[in-house]
Amino acid sequence: MISLDMPKNAILFHKRLHGKIFVDSKIRKPSNKTLQIIYTPGVATVCKEIFNHPNMKYQLTSKGNNVAIITDGTRILGLGNIGPNAAMPVMEGKSVLYREYGNISAFPLCLNTTDRKQIVETVKAISPAFGAINLEDIESPKVLDISHDLEKSLDIPVFHDDRHGTSVVVLAALLNSLVLVNKKISEIKVVIAGAGSAGYGIWKLLCFAGCTNIIVLDSKGAIYKGRKEGMNKYKNEIAQFTNRDEHGCLGEAIVRSDVFIGVSGIKNLLKTRMIKKMNPDPIVFALTNPYPEIHPTLARNAGARIIATGSFNYENKVNNALVFPYVMRAILDLKIRKITPDILYAVAVAIANTIPKRKLADNKIIPEIGDKSLQKRITAAILRQSRLN
Amino acid sequence: MISLDMPKNAILFHKRLHGKIFVDSKIRKPSNKTLQIIYTPGVATVCKEIFNHPNMKYQLTSKGNNVAIITDGTRILGLGNIGPNAAMPVMEGKSVLYREYGNISAFPLCLNTTDRKQIVETVKAISPAFGAINLEDIESPKVLDISHDLEKSLDIPVFHDDRHGTSVVVLAALLNSLVLVNKKISEIKVVIAGAGSAGYGIWKLLCFAGCTNIIVLDSKGAIYKGRKEGMNKYKNEIAQFTNRDEHGCLGEAIVRSDVFIGVSGIKNLLKTRMIKKMNPDPIVFALTNPYPEIHPTLARNAGARIIATGSFNYENKVNNALVFPYVMRAILDLKIRKITPDILYAVAVAIANTIPKRKLADNKIIPEIGDKSLQKRITAAILRQSRLN
Repeated sequence: MISLDMPKNAILFHKRLHGKIFVDSKIRKPSNKTLQIIYTPGVATVCKEIFNHPNMKYQLTSKGNNVAIITDGTRILGLGNIGPNAAMPVMEGKSVLYREYGNISAFPLCLNTTDRKQIVETVKAISPAFGAINLEDIESPKVLDISHDLEKSLDIPVFHDDRHGTSVVVLAALLNSLVLVNKKISEIKVVIAGAGSAGYGIWKLLCFAGCTNIIVLDSKGAIYKGRKEGMNKYKNEIAQFTNRDEHGCLGEAIVRSDVFIGVSGIKNLLKTRMIKKMNPDPIVFALTNPYPEIHPTLARNAGARIIATGSFNYENKVNNALVFPYVMRAILDLKIRKITPDILYAVAVAIANTIPKRKLADNKIIPEIGDKSLQKRITAAILRQSRLN
Repeated sequence: MISLDMPKNAILFHKRLHGKIFVDSKIRKPSNKTLQIIYTPGVATVCKEIFNHPNMKYQLTSKGNNVAIITDGTRILGLGNIGPNAAMPVMEGKSVLYREYGNISAFPLCLNTTDRKQIVETVKAISPAFGAINLEDIESPKVLDISHDLEKSLDIPVFHDDRHGTSVVVLAALLNSLVLVNKKISEIKVVIAGAGSAGYGIWKLLCFAGCTNIIVLDSKGAIYKGRKEGMNKYKNEIAQFTNRDEHGCLGEAIVRSDVFIGVSGIKNLLKTRMIKKMNPDPIVFALTNPYPEIHPTLARNAGARIIATGSFNYENKVNNALVFPYVMRAILDLKIRKITPDILYAVAVAIANTIPKRKLADNKIIPEIGDKSLQKRITAAILRQSRLN
């Protein structure tokens, strides 16, 4: 459980560190001879080699292991639009996780613009130094457009963590949960609260995984075909393929559902009375950070059987931190250019399979972030899938 | 001396390293409790603190120690326009030196655009993550315009190493050389071959230091008031203040000069016959990298008394690597916003004074890059100067 002095602790901890990351050199105390090789005149030979054989950039520089974490600060955690400076601690946190779990060199670029075109142009401009782009905490639907623009114009992969990473960890946790409650994914009813990047990504991957009865809600209620207010092309896509009947609010949509997935950004959105309307063995993933849609204890008392949050404070940590370092490591190593649903599905299955059936439990549906077998399983899954494509 | 197998060595060395830099984390093997503080939910408090008190970004994130090394690859060493990918090894080399000598976290951003406006917009966009900008190896005069644009629009300092750094190390070396040959800076004739960023910067700082007889040459010959061909506003500025009579080429301009400073980008530009036309005790700084304007042995044989290059292969290493890590450390620590000529002058004097008069020698006019006293002296000089301003 979170200690009461946590906020003060977090600030003190960060003040003492003076930033969580540091661009380090792989060379210590260079001799004059080493300077001749790594700097001038020797480095000129290395430059010419890359000029003549462009692909050598992956062997002779750090590009192949560098990831740019791109945000404009418009949708930081559940805090909303707090700008690029205040976004920095989260992005540095991502760098730390990339380093720790993926051995990846990730630099946070918090942008001083929220304009779609300018963000795209900036990322295109800085791309030569990086092996991949991680889009992070940019408001939706703008970020989905940015992601598509960049996928078309860059020759390096674009990983959209809020969409890709979250969808993978949710599906992995859901697959294991369904084993425990003995239900089939094709027969369950899922309610997703939130139609931003995460909601859209989860919806899409659940569809890919064979789930057909999904209701996605935004602040205006259920998204359905023919709704006029607050739609965009991604919500239209959702309406096109799922939910033909439900036009109501969360309290209505949740009736007789099997799974609630909260990626709404709204603290305490889910009420105990709603859980009571769900089918037997309710599965509740309240994933908004830092404050979930419902406190796990409340959810438990209301009858939820399997409860997960996105926070490291509770059991069942359904957080994309379990995904992005390992997936990025694999796509950098395997030189994957495009993140496709089949790759995401394969990764979700690989993560779910990290826990053997006999070890699954209501409070153990997803492995710990530091699980030593994750990298091997995820890389193998992506390699297998990329060969099939 | 450079070994004959150097080119092969340099490539092998870089291949083995797979890049010279790495974004590292200051936290090792985070426990679940640490994850709660550095990531979610704890980090939200830190974000909110910065949102409410923007200046806290310097205390709570790495911004204050991060430097962006910006290049578009148009003027890499003396190799010319080799593009952003081939530029990467030089920029990583700078990161290594920043780390080693300044304890600075410098990330290379090699840009996929050569357009002035787009470079300016890109740097403005990425500025929130950085405490300072280092412009590097961008073609002149574009880079001088970019530098001015950025100085006007950013709230962090813009260090233009080719201009600022080179001018400082040249002046420091020149001050010590003049002590050895017993000449006054106000009485010498200086010839500068090259009117790009370095030539312009050196010209400006020598003027500030009291040197009046300076002839700057570009590929069309001496720059003078009224010249029509190949001028730009920076060359006009040069013509406005120095050289009223000399309209010829290097062979003519160098007659009866005391100092030759080569920042031309042209290998073997300086001929032995030219050195023979110089005043007694010729001072020859052949600073182009990787191949100087004249080989030091040739210059010596032609009668040059004090010889320096920009290379780490020879004695008297007049390379801006002696300047940028230390100056950047100081301007980050002292929160200096603008690099002014008086600051550059103070730093040059501080570097020159690192070698006491009795220890000066023709082959020892400038300290070694790793000199332990450099940081203290440079920071003190900038602090003193900034208090005077």
